[in-house]
Amino acid sequence: MSRLKVTITMSLDGFVAGPNQTEKDPLGVGGEQLHQWLVPLQAFRETHGELGGEVNASTPIAEEILGNVGATIMGRNMFGGGPGPWGDDAWQGYWGDDPPYHHPVFVLTHHAREPLELEGGTTFNFVTDGIESAFEQARTAAGDEVVSIGGGANVVQQYLAAGLIDEIVISLVPILLGGGARLFDNLGEPAPTLRQVEVIEAPGVTHIRYARQ
Amino acid sequence: MSRLKVTITMSLDGFVAGPNQTEKDPLGVGGEQLHQWLVPLQAFRETHGELGGEVNASTPIAEEILGNVGATIMGRNMFGGGPGPWGDDAWQGYWGDDPPYHHPVFVLTHHAREPLELEGGTTFNFVTDGIESAFEQARTAAGDEVVSIGGGANVVQQYLAAGLIDEIVISLVPILLGGGARLFDNLGEPAPTLRQVEVIEAPGVTHIRYARQ
Repeated sequence: MSRLKVTITMSLDGFVAGPNQTEKDPLGVGGEQLHQWLVPLQAFRETHGELGGEVNASTPIAEEILGNVGATIMGRNMFGGGPGPWGDDAWQGYWGDDPPYHHPVFVLTHHAREPLELEGGTTFNFVTDGIESAFEQARTAAGDEVVSIGGGANVVQQYLAAGLIDEIVISLVPILLGGGARLFDNLGEPAPTLRQVEVIEAPGVTHIRYARQ
Repeated sequence: MSRLKVTITMSLDGFVAGPNQTEKDPLGVGGEQLHQWLVPLQAFRETHGELGGEVNASTPIAEEILGNVGATIMGRNMFGGGPGPWGDDAWQGYWGDDPPYHHPVFVLTHHAREPLELEGGTTFNFVTDGIESAFEQARTAAGDEVVSIGGGANVVQQYLAAGLIDEIVISLVPILLGGGARLFDNLGEPAPTLRQVEVIEAPGVTHIRYARQ
């Protein structure tokens, strides 16, 4: 049975995106700073077809984000296109013709839409019947591989509150965004319990792996 | 010139005390869980006159909390006794006749009070003219040693916002309190900038040292 996992970067004050997120600025004000540890890495650059880059203690985490993942679940805001019905000339997502997923992606939405098959093995499937259904579909698609939750914060929160997440890797960066999308919020009662499994010190970031208790 | 430092334990969702703090329950609901990494340690127990205890990767951090500190600053809520004027039979603090500080402590308050000298070298001084004044007095008292901010959250926030903190050690524990006193809040604009200096993986806790950028 494939496991459900989150790998996400969080500011020291608890945000995974800055304030005032818009379609043009999906990570909000200052949110791009979150991924300064990731973007210069060779492991990241090569998934975007670029040569060169750094290799450091973050490399295994960067490889893990996109490697060994058989399916991804994300919220509609992370896919993009704004709220409401999709319309005729519907948004195709933030990632161009050849998205870096290369596996089935399940987008949580209130508005039905036919699957969107793009190049390189990425198909966006639109799920309108809830998080459990999306997880079941993703698990079937992933086979022996991991199901990853891409985000955003409210999707992670829903899966955490439902007790469905097996593992969460927080990449904690020393920035203070002062507002935005808070990761650990709306978790219900009793709060999920986590166990610290592994810590990796890397330049400008601390990666901490937690497992469901 | 002595440096200003904070060593504080934070839940994964950003709280340094749980919800509903009261005089009898100063760390709020669930807040005692924060210090489960600290309390069993020999380094902690011996400051409270107890024998035995664990030695592990957290030991140097525990030793640092109370060692090499020449003066401590704390808020009135951390000293205790409730708000308002002190009255005749004034509260003597949460720590008994021989508090574990063994150095001058400066308590931020709106209400003047004579210094309270207890056993073992701890004198509580009550400062009514603001955080800069408390820092100056503490620095003078500390000599070559460090000035430590004991807490609570709002005191740390005021010193962070004023750009006065040289170093902050966060002991991040995998618990979710769901509410309470949030550490990184009300930090003003622009937010303070921090640099990650050191990471220590220990049982049930990750210690991360940050310096002012």
